[in-house]
Amino acid sequence: MMVEIIMVSHGDYAKSMLESAQMIVGEQDHVHTFGLHLGDDVDELREQLTEAIEKAQRNGELLVLTDMFSGSPFNITYSLMQYYSFRHITGVNLPLLLEILTSRESVGVDELCKMILDKGKETIIDVNKFLEEMN
Amino acid sequence: MMVEIIMVSHGDYAKSMLESAQMIVGEQDHVHTFGLHLGDDVDELREQLTEAIEKAQRNGELLVLTDMFSGSPFNITYSLMQYYSFRHITGVNLPLLLEILTSRESVGVDELCKMILDKGKETIIDVNKFLEEMN
Repeated sequence: MMVEIIMVSHGDYAKSMLESAQMIVGEQDHVHTFGLHLGDDVDELREQLTEAIEKAQRNGELLVLTDMFSGSPFNITYSLMQYYSFRHITGVNLPLLLEILTSRESVGVDELCKMILDKGKETIIDVNKFLEEMN
Repeated sequence: MMVEIIMVSHGDYAKSMLESAQMIVGEQDHVHTFGLHLGDDVDELREQLTEAIEKAQRNGELLVLTDMFSGSPFNITYSLMQYYSFRHITGVNLPLLLEILTSRESVGVDELCKMILDKGKETIIDVNKFLEEMN
């Protein structure tokens, strides 16, 4: 059983991150993205997200990925943690998402989150410094 | 003088990340995004990027942000570091981009990169663990 993924962001960031990931690892099932655009109703996003969380939880374990530690996408997800039991990682980037997508069949959600956190911080790299250290 | 920013990614990831950032900090000048889509010519991206790097360097210091440490967007940028002098950070996420956009008027590119790396790794957060530690 595969860990279900829901991604929530400002604008199309989550959607585009998934599309870019799919260019590399192919089409993905059991991943849903939500974006809050200018003028969108926050309550509507909360309703859509609630529905998606309930549906995902009927299928298995759930990991919700948000764009950053503040703002409505995060705040809505954070508030839903009171009512639903799921894992929530914020600050996701493309290499982290790829790691999640390629690992979620082989491990449970808790192990997956542990792996992500350990590897995630290493995905942000100063390439000039990397080059210096190579030479 | 403001640090110039160029973002390069698979698909629309860079473009959407900038658009989402602009929802939060407003319209940004001196930021250019490039995306490699399925079927795109890699040499064409290299030419466009070379042109953008030359133009940006006439305006000031340059920071190039790529999506991940592998793949064509990274590899093209990496190869151009032989010929042009710019800073290159890979694995960028939305909170990091926001930090860059709001700091790049007050510091030079080297100081900016140092700040980003220090703060960047802290933007990836296990929210369940954060909640546990709060209680």
